[in-house]
Formats: sequence, C-alpha cells, structure tokens
Amino acid sequence: MTLAVRYVSARSLDTAPAIGVPPGPGEVELAPAFVGICGTDLHIFHGDMDARVDAPAVLGHEMSGRVVRVGPGVEGWQPGDAVTVMPLRWDDTCPACRAGHQHICQHLDFIGIDSPGAMQQRWTVPASTLIRLPESLALDRAALVEPTAVAVHDVGRAAVREGEKVVVVGGGPVGVLIALVARAAGAEVRLVELNTHRRLLAEELGLAAWDPAAEDVSEAVRQWTQDAGADVAFEVSGAAAGVDTAVEVLGVRGRLCLVAIHPRPREVNLHRFFWRELTLVGARLYDRSDFERAAALVADGTVPAERLISKVVPLTEAPAAFEALESGGDVMKILVDCTDDAQGADA
Amino acid sequence: MTLAVRYVSARSLDTAPAIGVPPGPGEVELAPAFVGICGTDLHIFHGDMDARVDAPAVLGHEMSGRVVRVGPGVEGWQPGDAVTVMPLRWDDTCPACRAGHQHICQHLDFIGIDSPGAMQQRWTVPASTLIRLPESLALDRAALVEPTAVAVHDVGRAAVREGEKVVVVGGGPVGVLIALVARAAGAEVRLVELNTHRRLLAEELGLAAWDPAAEDVSEAVRQWTQDAGADVAFEVSGAAAGVDTAVEVLGVRGRLCLVAIHPRPREVNLHRFFWRELTLVGARLYDRSDFERAAALVADGTVPAERLISKVVPLTEAPAAFEALESGGDVMKILVDCTDDAQGADA
Repeated sequence: MTLAVRYVSARSLDTAPAIGVPPGPGEVELAPAFVGICGTDLHIFHGDMDARVDAPAVLGHEMSGRVVRVGPGVEGWQPGDAVTVMPLRWDDTCPACRAGHQHICQHLDFIGIDSPGAMQQRWTVPASTLIRLPESLALDRAALVEPTAVAVHDVGRAAVREGEKVVVVGGGPVGVLIALVARAAGAEVRLVELNTHRRLLAEELGLAAWDPAAEDVSEAVRQWTQDAGADVAFEVSGAAAGVDTAVEVLGVRGRLCLVAIHPRPREVNLHRFFWRELTLVGARLYDRSDFERAAALVADGTVPAERLISKVVPLTEAPAAFEALESGGDVMKILVDCTDDAQGADA
Repeated sequence: MTLAVRYVSARSLDTAPAIGVPPGPGEVELAPAFVGICGTDLHIFHGDMDARVDAPAVLGHEMSGRVVRVGPGVEGWQPGDAVTVMPLRWDDTCPACRAGHQHICQHLDFIGIDSPGAMQQRWTVPASTLIRLPESLALDRAALVEPTAVAVHDVGRAAVREGEKVVVVGGGPVGVLIALVARAAGAEVRLVELNTHRRLLAEELGLAAWDPAAEDVSEAVRQWTQDAGADVAFEVSGAAAGVDTAVEVLGVRGRLCLVAIHPRPREVNLHRFFWRELTLVGARLYDRSDFERAAALVADGTVPAERLISKVVPLTEAPAAFEALESGGDVMKILVDCTDDAQGADA
C-alpha cells in the first residue's frame, strides 16, 4: 500500500511515503482513525512553541484508531482492537514520578508535541499508552476521549461534589466537557462564554450559559447563589478577564481550578484569596484512571461527543482546517479523518 | 481610680478619662496587661485603612490581661482570671457562617479594627471571645498567643506534614512563628528574609535563614531538595518578589499558603501552577481550636515568645513606638504595657 499522505506536520502537509518500520519491542503500530485538533496544536502550528517543538513535527494527540501490528513482547493486544492513546511517557526516576505523579514527570515526553503524534496513517507507540475502547463506541466519538480525560482530571482536582454550584469560564471544547463532567458529578453548572455559537451549542446540551459582554457575571452569580458565591470556578478561557471573573465569582473557601495555559504572568487579586480563604488548584493532563472514566462517559452518552464535532476533514485538508481554526470562527471540535479510505483516489 | 491614659487611637494618644461603664449582659470587663503592635495596626495608624476604620479608633488585638468584672449571665469566669481574646464577632447568619466558617463571616467584626481594641486600661468584650490562659504563662509572653494562632491556622491550611520541606518567605513575627509551628509539626524549614537582624534572630532560634539579596533562593532550594522543589511555601512578605519566590521554589503538587496582605493585584506565574499542578491556599485569621493550640505552644515553650519581644513600652509611649516601627528598624515584636502601674506617677 502506498500512502499518498503521510502526516500533517507543524507547518505543512508532508507527502513523503510512510516507511513500513515494524514496531519494536513493547511497541504497537496503530492505524489512526480520527484525530482531534486541539488548542495546543494551534499554538504549535502557529510557531508559538518552536522552543519546544522541532519542525516538522507530526501533530495530534486526541485520537482513536485500531491496532495494526504488535511488537515483540506485547501481550493482550490484537490487530483490529479499537484503542485510544494516553500520550504520555515519563522517566519514572524524577522527583515527580517518585512521588506518584508520573503525568507531570519533570522530563515528560508528551507524544504529539515532544515526539511524533497521530496525524498520520500509521503511528507507532508504546503498548503501555493504549486504552481499550468498547466496540460499541464509534471511532469519531472516541476521538473526544482524550479531551474528556482532561475534563475528568480537572473536575477531580477541583473535588467537585454533588449539589455544588460551579462556574466554567470559557466554553470551548474543554470548557464544555468540564461543564458536562461536573454536571454528571451532581453539580449545578453555569458557563461563561463570549462566542454566541458556542453558547447556543452549550444551551442545546442543557447547559445554562452567560455572555460576559452582555451581563455582569459577578452579579448574576450573587443572585444565583443568594450572595454566597460559587463553590468552584474553572478558568478555561486563557484570558486575563477570565482569571478576574473566576476569582470574583467564588464564595468563602471557593476553589478555582486553573485549566487554561497562561504563557505570561497575570495580575491576580490575591487579596480576595486571603479574604475569602480561596484555593487555586493547577490541573494538567490526566492519569490512566481519568482516561478510563472518560472512555466510559463518552461510551454511555453522558458526554454526547457527537454534538461537539463540528466538522471532519481528510488529512489532506487538515492544514486548511488549522488555518480556519486559527482565525476563530463558529466551530467547536474539528476531527481529521486519517483512515486510508479518506485520503482520496490516489491513496 | 483616675485613668490618665485611656487609649492609643489610630492617630494619637487619647487622654480622656475612661468611663467606668459596667459590662452588659454576656460581657466581661478586662484589664489588658500587654498588647502587641501588629502590621495591620501600622496600616491603620498610617491611614491606609481609613475606608474601614473611623478615627479615633482604639487599636490592639494581640493581648493578654485579667478579668475585672463580669456582666449579667456570664458563667465560668471570675475576676483575676488570666485571659486572651479571640477578637472576632460574626453574624451567624451569612453564607460563610452557615457553612461553618465563622472566622471569615461576610460581616465580620474584627475587634481592634472594626470596633475598639485592647490598647486601653479597661476593655469590655463579649465573654464568648475569651480564651483561658494557664497561670504558669507570663502575661507578656501570652500577648503572642494571637499571632501564634495565625501561624497555627496557616500551617493547618497548608496541611504541613512531618518530614516535608517548607520555605517561609518573610521573617517578621508571623513568618518566624509559622516557621516555629511548622517545625513543631515535623517539617524542615528554611526562612527567606532580607533584614539581617531578623535573620540572625531566626538563626538563634535554630531556624536556617537565607538572604534573598545575597543568594539565589530558587537554586538553594533545588540543591536542598535534590531538584524536587519544596513541598510548601508561605508568602508572608507582602512583596511582589516574595510571591515570585514562593511560586518558584515549589515542586510538583507543592502548596503555597498566602498569608500576607497584598492590597493590589500581583502578577503571578500561573503557567507554573498549571505545569506543576501547584495549589495556592489563602489563609486568614483563626478559629478557637487554633487559639487553644497556640496558647499551649506558647505555654510549653515550643514557641519561645520571650525571644520575639524586642521592647515593652507604656501606653504613653505607644505612638512613638508606632512611628519607630513604621520606619522599619531592627525590631521584631513591640508590646505596649497597659497595666495601671506602667502609666507613671499621675495615674
């Protein structure tokens, strides 16, 4: 089989034919099916992360696919098995790993950023990264398991409990997923999002959403909580104003879970942290239990992943999809179809 | 008895004679013995808190003294009992109180700031605010129970555990008390303090101290922790650079306890909170259990309060002591002697 399109790199579509390197010991070769485009991918594509990423780098870490071949010593996996990948490799020796926090290893290899990702027709990864998917779960929906694992991790870090009032600042894919997972944990949730398209989509999913350009969110939270303030806020916007909102809406002993990446220092109202004894909790990535819980939530429809997929494009059109996402636009999640069949007649 | 000096007000020494108003129902009249001057008092004296404090206001909330008279319905207290006061009155109806966090009541009356404090020869307070002191504890040392209660609360909020490595940024009275309480909890502690006098005093108490002007504290922590970073940092400096240091020194999942008051927003490296999954915990005041634990720690010498007392001045000299503290200087804690005997021949 000639692969006409090999991968989507950080800057271009690389059309070199794939080399059929067999998987090494402990490795598995996959045929990626669907790969989501993530905000981090956009940063890389845009060149913001050149210090970390050598171009051309193969992007993609939100994926679903099937096992093609297994390398020597790999047990428990067969060709055809439906899988997603927890794209983390840790060193198991650094202080973070020794403390049991492998997912934030001080020398973490994030597959898809620090090493080649899933936007290609064949992808070889360590068998230890595989997460089994139920056969009942469609592979396009399964591509949302990875961002759902982020949401599961975030809701866990914030320790959201039944009956709590939760404000999610930022209604992109991760914000909406956090809202859905928090709701599944029994919380009452309000979303704050500027983009009308995203607000409407959230409302279709039964999530109440406020437009911060149209209303005073702090005042709305005061009324909603009878002056108590919210129990939990998630900052998923990445904007300075989003940080302010997330701090302001919290009541006494409220918890702010910081999800978005803020590359530069932000002004933070520390006095409010003192005055109300607030807590700020940083959250990054996930662990295996988060992934397994996420797969279950997507499979049973608690997370209606199909409603978040705005568009599916073949690998050849992925660069154009990156450009479109970069310019904003009324989209939620775009998937890249990496199956051989999708690549057109010359595949 | 004519009381020549009634109180130290926010701006001046008020020499009006005290009026012998008997304590009302549920109230107790105290004879304050020693009253510490706190950083917050300095803010008030300086006029920084005019929006909250009406001048003339009687300052003082770090105190020891004895019961003089008890009002109707007060049980369990006798004239002569040695006491300190937990200077908080809450409304018991706001959302914070209903959630069990009375000490951060949304309408808290902090006695000594929001209502008259202890820098007078007679002081009437609700009996519910009294904390019994052991007779073995000298009243000058007992004036440090209140700031020690702050430290106990802070160490509790940060959940410091035995064997953890703790960095305290800021070595004024509260910073040193936090270091002592954290050490009593089994932590290894390093203090960061610019002032040489304070560093030397800390070292005399067996606390290792770094001068941030002379050494790279982040690098020192890396070496101390074998590249793991500290488990806990306390920001007690109130300075922008102190916040940066406290964030930088923390290892993966480290906890930063925010103790100092930062009246204006500060730039915070939020990326580090995300990357290392750090936690920031605001801490304010204390509850009764913190106060009782603090009294025990001062009484048994775990907190050698006498070593932190730089100077004791009579009420008449308190304004000059405020001026001296405001201009910095090589002092730790200054106590005001409010006993009748200390006020000189015309008392």
